[in-house]
Amino acid sequence: MAPEMRQSVALLAEVQMRLEALEKKSARLHQRMELKISRQRRPHLDQRSSITKTIPGFWVTALLNHPHLSAHIDETDEDALSYMTDLEIESFKNNKLGYRIRFHFRRNPYFQNNIIMKELHLGMGGSPMSFSNPILWQRGQNLTAHSEPRKSSRGVYKTFFSWFSDHSSPGQDDVAQILKDDLYRDPLRYYLTPLWEPRENDESPEEEEEHLDRVAVDAIDVAGSDDSEQEDDDE
Amino acid sequence: MAPEMRQSVALLAEVQMRLEALEKKSARLHQRMELKISRQRRPHLDQRSSITKTIPGFWVTALLNHPHLSAHIDETDEDALSYMTDLEIESFKNNKLGYRIRFHFRRNPYFQNNIIMKELHLGMGGSPMSFSNPILWQRGQNLTAHSEPRKSSRGVYKTFFSWFSDHSSPGQDDVAQILKDDLYRDPLRYYLTPLWEPRENDESPEEEEEHLDRVAVDAIDVAGSDDSEQEDDDE
Repeated sequence: MAPEMRQSVALLAEVQMRLEALEKKSARLHQRMELKISRQRRPHLDQRSSITKTIPGFWVTALLNHPHLSAHIDETDEDALSYMTDLEIESFKNNKLGYRIRFHFRRNPYFQNNIIMKELHLGMGGSPMSFSNPILWQRGQNLTAHSEPRKSSRGVYKTFFSWFSDHSSPGQDDVAQILKDDLYRDPLRYYLTPLWEPRENDESPEEEEEHLDRVAVDAIDVAGSDDSEQEDDDE
Repeated sequence: MAPEMRQSVALLAEVQMRLEALEKKSARLHQRMELKISRQRRPHLDQRSSITKTIPGFWVTALLNHPHLSAHIDETDEDALSYMTDLEIESFKNNKLGYRIRFHFRRNPYFQNNIIMKELHLGMGGSPMSFSNPILWQRGQNLTAHSEPRKSSRGVYKTFFSWFSDHSSPGQDDVAQILKDDLYRDPLRYYLTPLWEPRENDESPEEEEEHLDRVAVDAIDVAGSDDSEQEDDDE
């Protein structure tokens, strides 16, 4: 390599190091901000969680009203899911791509678990992986053992509960993504509206606001809103 | 709906509004930070751009050394791309998902353009779309008209230049994504290293640092580094 070329390459290497440092700083700042927002989200999610527990069948209704999720739920699943008391989704602090989905259940005739959990994240080599805790079925109640495989347009499911132990394509776990990015973001919309069409993308604030306005108008009839703004000006 | 249920739903609607407000705030803050980082990136990118112009064949070499991009480049493409002087990729401020890729060329026997551009973004309905400026071929030099279609494992390309006008699957434009997320992030790595394996994911800082350390060690031989740290402590 000619000396003037080597010098250019050396200069480029320096620029590149500065750019990489900037990328790292950016990632660090975004992560720090996400952590902060996530802390602010927490009390609202806790409140949401305790309200949904007072509405019988809230989660099974929301799941069944979701067009993509309901495709995986048959009538027996529906009965088992009627014992569901909460959905909890937690993103990992140090890994944007990892999250844990927890289905909470009250005592029911199907299984002993209070919580059935599926976790998705990047494995050691950087490839996606998932795992879950085993479902402790009551004798003769194992829904994943009995039923025939069903084919839906989005895959083959024996029963919704087989999704928990399906780790065949963790990089494209549609159910997990829908739970996380859609149902968990606004379960009320699905609870209230049978087979609400999922949003095509999240960048349509008008439509979003319209929807919320409508829900809000419904809400005003029955509850005085005296604190809905207070949390929003502490950035 | 029973009155106590309506009350619960109304409370949920309020919580949901607060959560949505928080999401909007989060998106706003992330966008503001991205804008700030992008301003800090700018002078380094400008410097990089002017250095690469002093290295003959920098961009065609980087393109040919990239295992996924070289699969789309035949020998005539290579000659045409040897007139390339710069690659410029700009993300749109108000839309994380939109970006414009500009190939700069000096005067050459193939086409009249100084710049060939392809732009990818979300269209009105939220679905991805792309477009490009027409290539003004010199008479008899239209590379997209003559050559036979070639099949690679990643698709069919007549010539690399047909990619510019290929708008058939803008949501999965592999070439655009590789240009943006890989080649443009570190063109030096590809310029220096023939058929460098692309990173499996970007979350492996050790390997990253090793690579940069090595480049840096090479660099120290020929250029004194007196300013490589100064830009990194202004957060």
